[in-house]
Amino acid sequence: MTLKIGVIGTGMIGRDHTRRIQQVLAGAEVVALSDVNLASAESVRADLAPNAKLYETGEALIAAPEVDAVLVTSWGATHEPYVLAAVAAGKPVFCEKPLATTAEGARRIVEAEVAHGKRLVQVGFMRRYDAGYLALRQAVQQHTGAPILVHAAHRNPAVPEAYVTPMAIHDTLIHEIDVFRWLLDDDYVSARVLYPRNAARSHSKLRDPQVVVLETKKGVLIDVEIFVNCQYGYDIQCEVVGEAGTARLPEPMAVALRLDAKRQSSILTDWKDRFVASYDVELQDFIAAASQGGATGPSAWDGYAAAVTSDACVQAQESAGQAVAIELPARPALYE
Amino acid sequence: MTLKIGVIGTGMIGRDHTRRIQQVLAGAEVVALSDVNLASAESVRADLAPNAKLYETGEALIAAPEVDAVLVTSWGATHEPYVLAAVAAGKPVFCEKPLATTAEGARRIVEAEVAHGKRLVQVGFMRRYDAGYLALRQAVQQHTGAPILVHAAHRNPAVPEAYVTPMAIHDTLIHEIDVFRWLLDDDYVSARVLYPRNAARSHSKLRDPQVVVLETKKGVLIDVEIFVNCQYGYDIQCEVVGEAGTARLPEPMAVALRLDAKRQSSILTDWKDRFVASYDVELQDFIAAASQGGATGPSAWDGYAAAVTSDACVQAQESAGQAVAIELPARPALYE
Amino acid sequence: MTLKIGVIGTGMIGRDHTRRIQQVLAGAEVVALSDVNLASAESVRADLAPNAKLYETGEALIAAPEVDAVLVTSWGATHEPYVLAAVAAGKPVFCEKPLATTAEGARRIVEAEVAHGKRLVQVGFMRRYDAGYLALRQAVQQHTGAPILVHAAHRNPAVPEAYVTPMAIHDTLIHEIDVFRWLLDDDYVSARVLYPRNAARSHSKLRDPQVVVLETKKGVLIDVEIFVNCQYGYDIQCEVVGEAGTARLPEPMAVALRLDAKRQSSILTDWKDRFVASYDVELQDFIAAASQGGATGPSAWDGYAAAVTSDACVQAQESAGQAVAIELPARPALYE
Amino acid sequence: MTLKIGVIGTGMIGRDHTRRIQQVLAGAEVVALSDVNLASAESVRADLAPNAKLYETGEALIAAPEVDAVLVTSWGATHEPYVLAAVAAGKPVFCEKPLATTAEGARRIVEAEVAHGKRLVQVGFMRRYDAGYLALRQAVQQHTGAPILVHAAHRNPAVPEAYVTPMAIHDTLIHEIDVFRWLLDDDYVSARVLYPRNAARSHSKLRDPQVVVLETKKGVLIDVEIFVNCQYGYDIQCEVVGEAGTARLPEPMAVALRLDAKRQSSILTDWKDRFVASYDVELQDFIAAASQGGATGPSAWDGYAAAVTSDACVQAQESAGQAVAIELPARPALYE
Repeated sequence: MTLKIGVIGTGMIGRDHTRRIQQVLAGAEVVALSDVNLASAESVRADLAPNAKLYETGEALIAAPEVDAVLVTSWGATHEPYVLAAVAAGKPVFCEKPLATTAEGARRIVEAEVAHGKRLVQVGFMRRYDAGYLALRQAVQQHTGAPILVHAAHRNPAVPEAYVTPMAIHDTLIHEIDVFRWLLDDDYVSARVLYPRNAARSHSKLRDPQVVVLETKKGVLIDVEIFVNCQYGYDIQCEVVGEAGTARLPEPMAVALRLDAKRQSSILTDWKDRFVASYDVELQDFIAAASQGGATGPSAWDGYAAAVTSDACVQAQESAGQAVAIELPARPALYE
Repeated sequence: MTLKIGVIGTGMIGRDHTRRIQQVLAGAEVVALSDVNLASAESVRADLAPNAKLYETGEALIAAPEVDAVLVTSWGATHEPYVLAAVAAGKPVFCEKPLATTAEGARRIVEAEVAHGKRLVQVGFMRRYDAGYLALRQAVQQHTGAPILVHAAHRNPAVPEAYVTPMAIHDTLIHEIDVFRWLLDDDYVSARVLYPRNAARSHSKLRDPQVVVLETKKGVLIDVEIFVNCQYGYDIQCEVVGEAGTARLPEPMAVALRLDAKRQSSILTDWKDRFVASYDVELQDFIAAASQGGATGPSAWDGYAAAVTSDACVQAQESAGQAVAIELPARPALYE
Repeated sequence: MTLKIGVIGTGMIGRDHTRRIQQVLAGAEVVALSDVNLASAESVRADLAPNAKLYETGEALIAAPEVDAVLVTSWGATHEPYVLAAVAAGKPVFCEKPLATTAEGARRIVEAEVAHGKRLVQVGFMRRYDAGYLALRQAVQQHTGAPILVHAAHRNPAVPEAYVTPMAIHDTLIHEIDVFRWLLDDDYVSARVLYPRNAARSHSKLRDPQVVVLETKKGVLIDVEIFVNCQYGYDIQCEVVGEAGTARLPEPMAVALRLDAKRQSSILTDWKDRFVASYDVELQDFIAAASQGGATGPSAWDGYAAAVTSDACVQAQESAGQAVAIELPARPALYE
Repeated sequence: MTLKIGVIGTGMIGRDHTRRIQQVLAGAEVVALSDVNLASAESVRADLAPNAKLYETGEALIAAPEVDAVLVTSWGATHEPYVLAAVAAGKPVFCEKPLATTAEGARRIVEAEVAHGKRLVQVGFMRRYDAGYLALRQAVQQHTGAPILVHAAHRNPAVPEAYVTPMAIHDTLIHEIDVFRWLLDDDYVSARVLYPRNAARSHSKLRDPQVVVLETKKGVLIDVEIFVNCQYGYDIQCEVVGEAGTARLPEPMAVALRLDAKRQSSILTDWKDRFVASYDVELQDFIAAASQGGATGPSAWDGYAAAVTSDACVQAQESAGQAVAIELPARPALYE
């Protein structure tokens, strides 16, 4: 009853997911690998999955009869065709962010899946599997009363020179965009972007920090600070204000030190450490559902909604504080 | 060398300041009292200042030769004429908020004081004397690097039915308006108000909560949540985000309990308890300066700036998310 | 390369470890089950390990050729003979606490393992695998300077009526006894027990709370409060005081709520939730070492040291505040 | 109605109390000063109390008709005779720690005061006036249920070379000795001292750290770590464990910073800053009671109990972990 998985794209994240399946998680094994750079796939096979077969193309891997389910961890522009191929083959597919590079592309996947008639796609929004967000969601449902406001921050110590203003949406805010829809069980209706002066460490092609303001159908107002040159650490903050009280995302576990005239606790500096445990959980969830021939967790519809919202936020970045409307078509019954 | 003080207005706050001067602070005594309701003044005299003389009018009290300095704690609409009279008499005057009910009124006081040629007026913005804000300001100056963003919240458990939308500015935000100018050593250039859905406990004449967004000359972007039906407590939050790190206003002192499966600490529920110590400090500061014949602390100019900003915020409340410009004339040299 | 595991004892913990191996961890499968109550083993097979073979006795299971490694999760009195049998068979064995019910029994296992010449035994002291203790140990090694004092507490909300004074050592303190040896890389030289008045919820056969004071070879003084009727929650506290500073065991992750005039966070009430993640890690560690034919982690020697220390603590419980010496023979080279 | 105070001893603390009375507190003035070093008294007069009269001896000051009440802030060995003289003169007297240098001396004061028939003496145990301890006491009375255990620590960053082992009791623990009697409304019955290895920064005449264990009449067990070379700061910790929960002394107010990959808050390093506000409150309390001709707050009996307990603790320091009994005579009705 071991799920046989094929991995398309063996870069950093593909290699890491392969390690997870082979060495950490129960119930699955990697039986097929593919990468545009065959040497990369060869290396992952040698290190982690000696019994896996190599395929020249992702399409061939998807078609292979021994492959039960597919992981798409290749370059973003290739996600859409691979996911569409997996859906066409009726095989469960886990796709890393983004589901597609355009909202239209994501919508094509939604349409294909709807036509197929049951869920096959899980998108790699791992925060939904983070113990902190799960606890926050439960606290909101049980204690705060209905949400009215969300105050959030997404801070990185620094970014490479190539990081420019729209990437603050596509690469950074994208996580908040998805996880707040899930946290609030809600959808967005508008986005607005406000800028303070630029941080001294930023540059002419990057407005940093920025504050994105989102409104939801239920009337929740969300402000998210994005600050990718904050220097002090990788820090994800989220406070939900409800009718009766507030709830705040737990801080990562840290030893409390008293040292050098300071009470102090470490803050992470590498984003890869922040949600590391949630990658295990999301993939275990994929294995469980794919073993039954389907998919649960973040859906193609969630990936589409994130793409539409991202587009609106980027437009809002250029709209001088004006609200940009966010409109989604009716949600297909498959995703209710 | 005891400073002889006359108090105009012997309601709750006038009585409390009289108690402070008579029983808590060094260097001053209340020698004169006045109130439109003479019985009230009589009662304060009986309880707290048996040697004080009663005056039928504030003007007479100001003119009395034994009065060295004046406290104006009467009804808001009377502040302007009393302060102007004190300035005309060359006597230091402490005036509770608001300095005047209109920006024009506040400006007349500024002009009178400038004409007089030295500072005589202190406005009752007590947060500048709070140990928490003082520590925050020091932390910003020493540790965070130059400020870029401020995230703040001003929450009350509930308000009376008569509290309507503009009061969220005049009665509530007014404290943040002043204290952030001081905290950041900056001035405002625009205000914007954003609304989520109304809280269930609010009513048709009160938009609650609301988020006020202020921009400053130096480019700092400030968001302040005002939520006067938050139910859970009186809670003042302030986080400054600077170039190198963040600093957060200390929580009020509280015992850490482990009880009933919860780590827990009390939150205050009555605003009167939150800054109670700062009233002592601000009045002691007034006594010190007035004993030298002048005034320090929050100035008439600060009162004027707060009035201008309040007017813009109220206008922004009716402007559907649009920014309203805030313009101040050049600051007179007296207030540099 | 899947490790084939036989499980002796299919009660609560044996069932849970079987689930772990079958559904959560990579690299192993349960191929054999045994229990004095065969129906219990039958039920675990049906629910979790349909391919496992049932054995009438633990000895038969240990001898079975398809069994690579053994889990001993049976009744405490049977641990010693099963572990000895596994060592005699040269098979890696994971044994839940206690390694044996007497120090002499534990010593017999040490001697058998030493005679065998390499490590085969891992004892189920899971706290060494807890992320919090691991972080604390790192903090002590990197930040606090050499330890001088440890202040600790082990609190349960309540215990069954059958829980009597010595169980505070054997069932409760046993975890601290092991984890502090590891945390400090040290051994004990004496134990002392001090009693306050009894808690109202306790009874005549249970002194509760009590404070156990341990001294180590390196001169560290450790005080541990044991309070098994503390009412408010299951709470494990540990603060290490070193030459330059202090470090405190992290609190379990919890949402920070502001509600009902309180800042509040949940405290666990069920001990099973407190170190749940560490069971996964300890068993994964066993699988990794057993796959290489050996064992790492808490050793038979650690089990023996814990047994000797427990005996001294129980003696100290009856010694009216006097210190009882703790003496261990020289540590065999196998355990250096 | 201004209370006229004479100050005996114008060193650091005498000067500071004079400043308090003259510049901070209401209702009193310093009218007389005395010091063995007349130049010191002269300097305090010049700086702070120009209208005060200088006296050659404390006895003369006490006898002076214009002196309503006396502050004894001279060298410890002189406290007893000055306090006895004040009691003999029927004048309220505030005496800094220690009330007397021996338990017998303190008892003579108790007997004199009892003979006088009403309270005149307040001892300078300022922690009872600290807002943190007051809040802790209230929490214990309202929330934790009856106390069973107290875990405490008194840490200084460093001490002068002349600081030797008994000073850990007389100069350091003395504050805990008094404040826990008040906190618990209880008396001590035994003391025991336990030592870990010496800290590297300590020296041959100072055992540091040490743990003092006190038992009370009501059966509370108290452990207090004294560590006067802890390096990292001046840190006072206190946790009360009651029948239903625990309460912890609040940390001093501090800004929460996120900086340099750390969440951090300052710890004080100078003991003079830790309870600074409580000095104002204790003296204001003295002024209030002395204005009525009596005394409240920490009594001569409290000073006597502290002296008896200190003696037992010092004896326990030399008793190798044995408990030393603490016996007080029956409490005179005056102190009920």
